[in-house]
Amino acid sequence: MRRVDWSVLDAAAREQVLARPDALEAPGRADDVARILADVALRGDAALRDYTRRFDGVDLASFEVDSAAFDAAEAALSPVLKQAIDDAADRIERFHQAGMATPYAVETAAGVLCERVIRPIDVVGLYVPAGTAPLPSTALMLGVPARLAGCPTVVLCTPPRPDGAADPAVLYAARRCGISRVFTLGGVQAIGAMARGTGSVPACDKLFGPGNGWVTEAKRQVAAGPRAVGIDLPAGPSEVLVIADAGARPAFVAADLLSQAEHGPDSQVLLLSDHAPLLDAVAAEVERQLECLPRADVARQALASSSLVRVETLDDAFAISNRYAPEHLILALRDARGRLQDVSAAGSVFLGDWAPEALGDYCSGTNHVLPTAGAARAYSGVNVASFQKTITVQEVSRSGLAGIGPCAAEIAAAEGLDAHRRAVTLRLEAAA
Amino acid sequence: MRRVDWSVLDAAAREQVLARPDALEAPGRADDVARILADVALRGDAALRDYTRRFDGVDLASFEVDSAAFDAAEAALSPVLKQAIDDAADRIERFHQAGMATPYAVETAAGVLCERVIRPIDVVGLYVPAGTAPLPSTALMLGVPARLAGCPTVVLCTPPRPDGAADPAVLYAARRCGISRVFTLGGVQAIGAMARGTGSVPACDKLFGPGNGWVTEAKRQVAAGPRAVGIDLPAGPSEVLVIADAGARPAFVAADLLSQAEHGPDSQVLLLSDHAPLLDAVAAEVERQLECLPRADVARQALASSSLVRVETLDDAFAISNRYAPEHLILALRDARGRLQDVSAAGSVFLGDWAPEALGDYCSGTNHVLPTAGAARAYSGVNVASFQKTITVQEVSRSGLAGIGPCAAEIAAAEGLDAHRRAVTLRLEAAA
Ligand SMILES: [Zn+2]
Ligand SMILES: [Zn+2]
Repeated sequence: MRRVDWSVLDAAAREQVLARPDALEAPGRADDVARILADVALRGDAALRDYTRRFDGVDLASFEVDSAAFDAAEAALSPVLKQAIDDAADRIERFHQAGMATPYAVETAAGVLCERVIRPIDVVGLYVPAGTAPLPSTALMLGVPARLAGCPTVVLCTPPRPDGAADPAVLYAARRCGISRVFTLGGVQAIGAMARGTGSVPACDKLFGPGNGWVTEAKRQVAAGPRAVGIDLPAGPSEVLVIADAGARPAFVAADLLSQAEHGPDSQVLLLSDHAPLLDAVAAEVERQLECLPRADVARQALASSSLVRVETLDDAFAISNRYAPEHLILALRDARGRLQDVSAAGSVFLGDWAPEALGDYCSGTNHVLPTAGAARAYSGVNVASFQKTITVQEVSRSGLAGIGPCAAEIAAAEGLDAHRRAVTLRLEAAA
Repeated sequence: MRRVDWSVLDAAAREQVLARPDALEAPGRADDVARILADVALRGDAALRDYTRRFDGVDLASFEVDSAAFDAAEAALSPVLKQAIDDAADRIERFHQAGMATPYAVETAAGVLCERVIRPIDVVGLYVPAGTAPLPSTALMLGVPARLAGCPTVVLCTPPRPDGAADPAVLYAARRCGISRVFTLGGVQAIGAMARGTGSVPACDKLFGPGNGWVTEAKRQVAAGPRAVGIDLPAGPSEVLVIADAGARPAFVAADLLSQAEHGPDSQVLLLSDHAPLLDAVAAEVERQLECLPRADVARQALASSSLVRVETLDDAFAISNRYAPEHLILALRDARGRLQDVSAAGSVFLGDWAPEALGDYCSGTNHVLPTAGAARAYSGVNVASFQKTITVQEVSRSGLAGIGPCAAEIAAAEGLDAHRRAVTLRLEAAA
């Protein structure tokens, strides 16, 4: 990790500290993705079989997981893991349910009732990666809000293992969320199948979930395509920013930095502190803890583009953090609660010494599908509303139209839209 | 308008009735847009001056509207129009304010407090087109929710008139919404300026507003670009679907179809009815009303890709409408209120005979920036939340960590993320 003193950096150097690592080299990726998506759209299930053979190394006659496979998965799982998944699901559900939007109505003028109603998105597609390991937690983070939203059809794609089966923990989590339509499909071909539909996979209205660079590029392409398939978030590598004061525990901070760094070689971690000795202590702890970490290689690569930053004041730290807009923000501060008001852009915030980011990843109740790469400046993490649309409604009585019609006619005239004006004046005449 | 009977159409013919008109031919548009965006990013204000000279035909030394120009605009406007804009703004504000999200907190486990807090997007950019005519109503539809959201910096770009000034009604509406930073900039160059920032225009975190095909393509490109600039909606031509029963008034329905058709040659209107004589009567009324319409040429082009559809039952009509997912849906029905529950995808719904779509465009209180081209299957119209982000927060006590930590450690182990597990177990040991 670089060690820098913010106050002595010039603008360019500051920019460089906050720059996200370059995406891993992938020449021609956009073209390759476009080709696979087009092929899936054209050949459907036959194309899915070909790409699954090529990329996952398995030959699958069909992709949909049947109920026997769900049963087998449940039987294969340890009771402790099942209980952990159940408990996590309960807390995720409790938190998400409390934040659900409600319909409302306002009489904006006499006889003019305006409303907002809420509808689930009809068909949603969830992608649950299994790159380095399967991610049952992601199945919960997408499946729980989809169920709360009331989506009638929930599709889940997850890559097959070498034996062709889906990961049992992912299947258990999916069933826990009431998802019955699970497909052993991964990568670009899974995104293509859900975006356009094939003989076996339903076409989805919106796609959710993290993924590697290929999956992300595929989601970007289908979102920009003609069918207006929605996507949850523009995705990028995971990241954390920690603001720590003199009282923070170096071992805890180091563990949090490393748990973020192990996500992938392109992850980024930043530690900001007004207390130089803490930065020294954390640097030493990181080295110490790295020694016994299975994924130390991955973490070391991530740390290469990460920084320990000395700031003059905590105010400076919050200004830097808001500019960076981290996916995860840990406030390892004595007055973490009091400082929350200074956070203007972040995906999820962890207050104090006892809230490791891993809790948010799994089971505090908040969602772990969060905006990365600075998108937290404009985007929110996944929540129940991500699986719903709001529709506005206006109900206008004859006298209501008489009341506000002239206002509409006046503005229509100013905008040179005469047919708009007449749709109102025609009624005003009829109502008189 | 085509006249079809839904029950006798095969699947392909049905598909064709519901197909959106092809985007107007624009070979090379994506490349041209990319070139202009890159040039604005590189040369800033100098590029803006060049493109404004080329596309708007005016030579502007600076783009920002000063307070004298706001004063002059206000003085130039008729009192009746000012009053109409004020009244519309009041109702838009009343409706939008009532739907604002609120923060909340849930104790998901003892000692684990999870929260959602709400923050305005820091810098938002509003685009107010002036293609065939200036659109003060769009300034209200974007400016009012931006103010309610509390966005600290609101930028508005609108194309200059031939004399180099902004439209006075747009300026009046902007000031009414408390927007002080207005720039006389239009087209791709305006989007480029707001997306990247120039010497005079602040870089924005999210861009809003309708526009022609060029503006839409520019928004699409900056949203897919590396800075993760948010955009409100994937935009397309405007459209309306009307479901009418035997009791509907043909003159009203025809006026509504025409007010939609006059938006542009690529607009689309659909009328669905279970009562054939109504379709005949509306067809005749459309012809009659077209004769005295200033924008009849535009409307006629739109009607060429529009249809009058006879359905067997109103249930069929709702199934078709939900599949089409119209931007505007008018229910010219005796039981419009009772039928609202059958609407699962639409931008905004107008109930009964006295709610012309023009009211929603201007002054009922709902927003007129709505999902088009079927995007209503996955997207909502613009509202206050479009100008905000939600941030989740977790505050965990030492005993809270002791309670839920083992759950997180168990799932982390299942996912092969050992550093995540250790960030938890390290604290469990320290807490014990
Ligand atoms: Zn993590
Ligand atoms: Zn309209």
